[in-house]
Amino acid sequence: MAKGKEQAFVQHITPRDENFSQWYTDVVRMADLMDYTPVRGCIALKPYGNRIWELIREELDRRFKETGHENVSMPMLIPESLLLKEAEHVEGFAPEVAWVTQGGGEVLQERLAIRPTSETMFCTMFAQWVQSWRDLPMKYNQWCSVMRWEKTTRPFLRTAEFWWQEGHTIHATAEEAQEETLLMLEVYRSFCEDVLAVPVFSGQKSDKEKFAGARATYSVEAMMQDGKALQAGTTHNFGTNFSVPFNIQYQNKEGELAYVHETSWGMSTRLIGAIIMTHGDERGLKLPPAIAPFQVVILPIAAHKGGVMEKCGEVFDLLKQAGIRVKLDDRDHLSPGWKFNEWELKGVPLRLEIGPRDIENGVASYMRRDSFEKGTLQLDDLTSGVKTLLEGIQQGMFDLADAFKVERTQDVSNMEELTAQVQVGYARAMWCGNRACEDKIKDETSATSRNMPFDQTPFGDSCVCCGEKARKVMYFAKAY
Amino acid sequence: MAKGKEQAFVQHITPRDENFSQWYTDVVRMADLMDYTPVRGCIALKPYGNRIWELIREELDRRFKETGHENVSMPMLIPESLLLKEAEHVEGFAPEVAWVTQGGGEVLQERLAIRPTSETMFCTMFAQWVQSWRDLPMKYNQWCSVMRWEKTTRPFLRTAEFWWQEGHTIHATAEEAQEETLLMLEVYRSFCEDVLAVPVFSGQKSDKEKFAGARATYSVEAMMQDGKALQAGTTHNFGTNFSVPFNIQYQNKEGELAYVHETSWGMSTRLIGAIIMTHGDERGLKLPPAIAPFQVVILPIAAHKGGVMEKCGEVFDLLKQAGIRVKLDDRDHLSPGWKFNEWELKGVPLRLEIGPRDIENGVASYMRRDSFEKGTLQLDDLTSGVKTLLEGIQQGMFDLADAFKVERTQDVSNMEELTAQVQVGYARAMWCGNRACEDKIKDETSATSRNMPFDQTPFGDSCVCCGEKARKVMYFAKAY
Repeated sequence: MAKGKEQAFVQHITPRDENFSQWYTDVVRMADLMDYTPVRGCIALKPYGNRIWELIREELDRRFKETGHENVSMPMLIPESLLLKEAEHVEGFAPEVAWVTQGGGEVLQERLAIRPTSETMFCTMFAQWVQSWRDLPMKYNQWCSVMRWEKTTRPFLRTAEFWWQEGHTIHATAEEAQEETLLMLEVYRSFCEDVLAVPVFSGQKSDKEKFAGARATYSVEAMMQDGKALQAGTTHNFGTNFSVPFNIQYQNKEGELAYVHETSWGMSTRLIGAIIMTHGDERGLKLPPAIAPFQVVILPIAAHKGGVMEKCGEVFDLLKQAGIRVKLDDRDHLSPGWKFNEWELKGVPLRLEIGPRDIENGVASYMRRDSFEKGTLQLDDLTSGVKTLLEGIQQGMFDLADAFKVERTQDVSNMEELTAQVQVGYARAMWCGNRACEDKIKDETSATSRNMPFDQTPFGDSCVCCGEKARKVMYFAKAY
Repeated sequence: MAKGKEQAFVQHITPRDENFSQWYTDVVRMADLMDYTPVRGCIALKPYGNRIWELIREELDRRFKETGHENVSMPMLIPESLLLKEAEHVEGFAPEVAWVTQGGGEVLQERLAIRPTSETMFCTMFAQWVQSWRDLPMKYNQWCSVMRWEKTTRPFLRTAEFWWQEGHTIHATAEEAQEETLLMLEVYRSFCEDVLAVPVFSGQKSDKEKFAGARATYSVEAMMQDGKALQAGTTHNFGTNFSVPFNIQYQNKEGELAYVHETSWGMSTRLIGAIIMTHGDERGLKLPPAIAPFQVVILPIAAHKGGVMEKCGEVFDLLKQAGIRVKLDDRDHLSPGWKFNEWELKGVPLRLEIGPRDIENGVASYMRRDSFEKGTLQLDDLTSGVKTLLEGIQQGMFDLADAFKVERTQDVSNMEELTAQVQVGYARAMWCGNRACEDKIKDETSATSRNMPFDQTPFGDSCVCCGEKARKVMYFAKAY
């Protein structure tokens, strides 16, 4: 933050209801999460944004390992011939590939793609690695960045390079592959809801919206405060779509060669966009405690008065030792008011203020970022007081977002209702299952099919669009 | 490991003294650390090798954060115009760059390099980010992979793509930049010695061997079992070499514009090569407990006998809860002898065997991978017994490697002695400081200057090569 703007900076955030898109851009920039770079469509994650991603990684990685996955690291380059092996896949990705054509001062004989995703590389290696049924399943994941030459980009939501994880697994049977696909969808759902405090709809994508080369794609779809959907994670069941062209075979218990069944699943730095647009407000970012770089910020009040900085230091040590991520803002050239604004903008869940009067009373004053609720905590039982508040904030943020999601989701039974509903949120509709209706809905309303919930209990007989026999319950929404 | 080779597989490792290079390749492949890929010079890290790298990352990252560094993520592509800004730097890296020339179906107006290192990108961003002295220092690091189009490659030691960390920092004064450069060298030294059990020489590189664009480069140099040096990490002080062409200026306390002073430092997956060649033996890998994916493997003996698997399961839970990385090998189609060989090959520091007789006696039998020492541990005090053994193994591995390093390092006073010594290890020599002598030594012996120790107490007056006045104490060795 440049100097001289002290008084004004919070007012620079465009109000959400005035221009949600501009509000988003303002928050991203002012909270110091990222910056644009001289490379078209590529961003840099600054320390604060990168730390959020690290905390996301750590928690997701723990859940992947708990469910029996191991990490590997694959090459970032993929020879063109590999990309071409699965027809639908290449069609989906070829238009947005960045190609390496020169290396070590020479023109390469074959172009190499910077991975837009790594199915083809994993398939190539799986074919080398699997021999017998004893080697199965192989449940691998990698953390890396990938590159897709997008035409229009927005920080976190759509960038040419982005950071993600991609899980790739192979299994002996179709059943096991389907189990894995749904298991990881559930890992994604619980991660979004329990860690990011972002409520989601879990379900299956339509054939039109599924991943290039997949037999079935599932997604978790979040709802942003403008009512638009954000796809937060996807899991794919490939069946043998890749294992046949890549010849990934194993010897089964009967001694016969059989093709493996394959899955993949991914989540990306897009999640940071989901956090911002689910929770943020006029004052800036609101971070759920589980992934906040600082869960607590301590602000000394009248820091020059005897005992204040000492007490703040003690409290800092105490909370740090209790495993709480805490920041002591001891900068002496900024006023408390400036610091209040700055830490609110950065979304720190809990602010503690400690001044001479607090010390006299044996308390610390607090403010919750989620509700702006203020109060005091006893200094002699501070750790448990802070932990209780953080848990309350985590739950409170989820509840608020969930209430919004419920309020902004409505059943619709005709195009008029659907058109109105997708202006403000998700429309749950009965659908015939045909691509033609999906296309028509998109043309007329710019909403797309998001996913089909697992509960497919019908609430009507006729398709919202064509009026013919309905076969599916489908969520429609405008989407990022 | 394919079936049918059960009896034979350990014998496939070439003895170290027969062909050290082939021994290395055998161990790397058979311990299942990595695999070759269809991309020239690029490897895949398999789960076991990748897990070693993860553990290295976690411990290094903790040390970086402890010393006040924050992680960021920069774009993987660097526009050619940025690479060209610092003359020495581009000269050093341009020959081995991989170039992206096409993206999204179009030919790019400017070539983009896949980062061979990121000084130029960090400089560009630092110039955007720094304004006043209050913003300094900025101490950043990133974990990523980089690409250098090497002609000849060897797993971990030299590959086109490799995984690393690169620290980049900017400071207000030359003194602070130099302090940082030496601080990170010390972080590297203690990491190598205390975590990897790899003893190193810390010191300054010659002008010839320093990094392209640096004013001074420092390194930690390890000694492999064939007596050759392996540069395990480097730290660089750039002074204002980059901040001038990239115009990275800040307003100092006096209100004047001044150039920042810059450093960078890196360690890579090469460290895995260092671990293998420092500690490995005829039976395969030997991993120091601090970075072993499994510190302990439990092997059931006569697993079908009543109570054996139950006890093994109990012990597994106990050790796991104590924070020890433990594997229970409950595969029932392999003999204990096969498993002994396999876990020795994979370098697991401590093997526990539990059979009916052990249970009767209230003990677990153990074998240390470092010394092959066998003994028993009381089951009712197993955790502390295991922890004590692991500490002993960690220390024992360092001591053994350190004794080897001392034995294979000799002072030399003429070319004949130097030539003989670099056949078996490091030669410590007095050197005039001239490039001509460095070149001559390399031509005649294929040894290169490694680094100049901080203790520069002379032990002679004349240069080992030309006989003129000696100015420096320098280590020479053949190197990877």
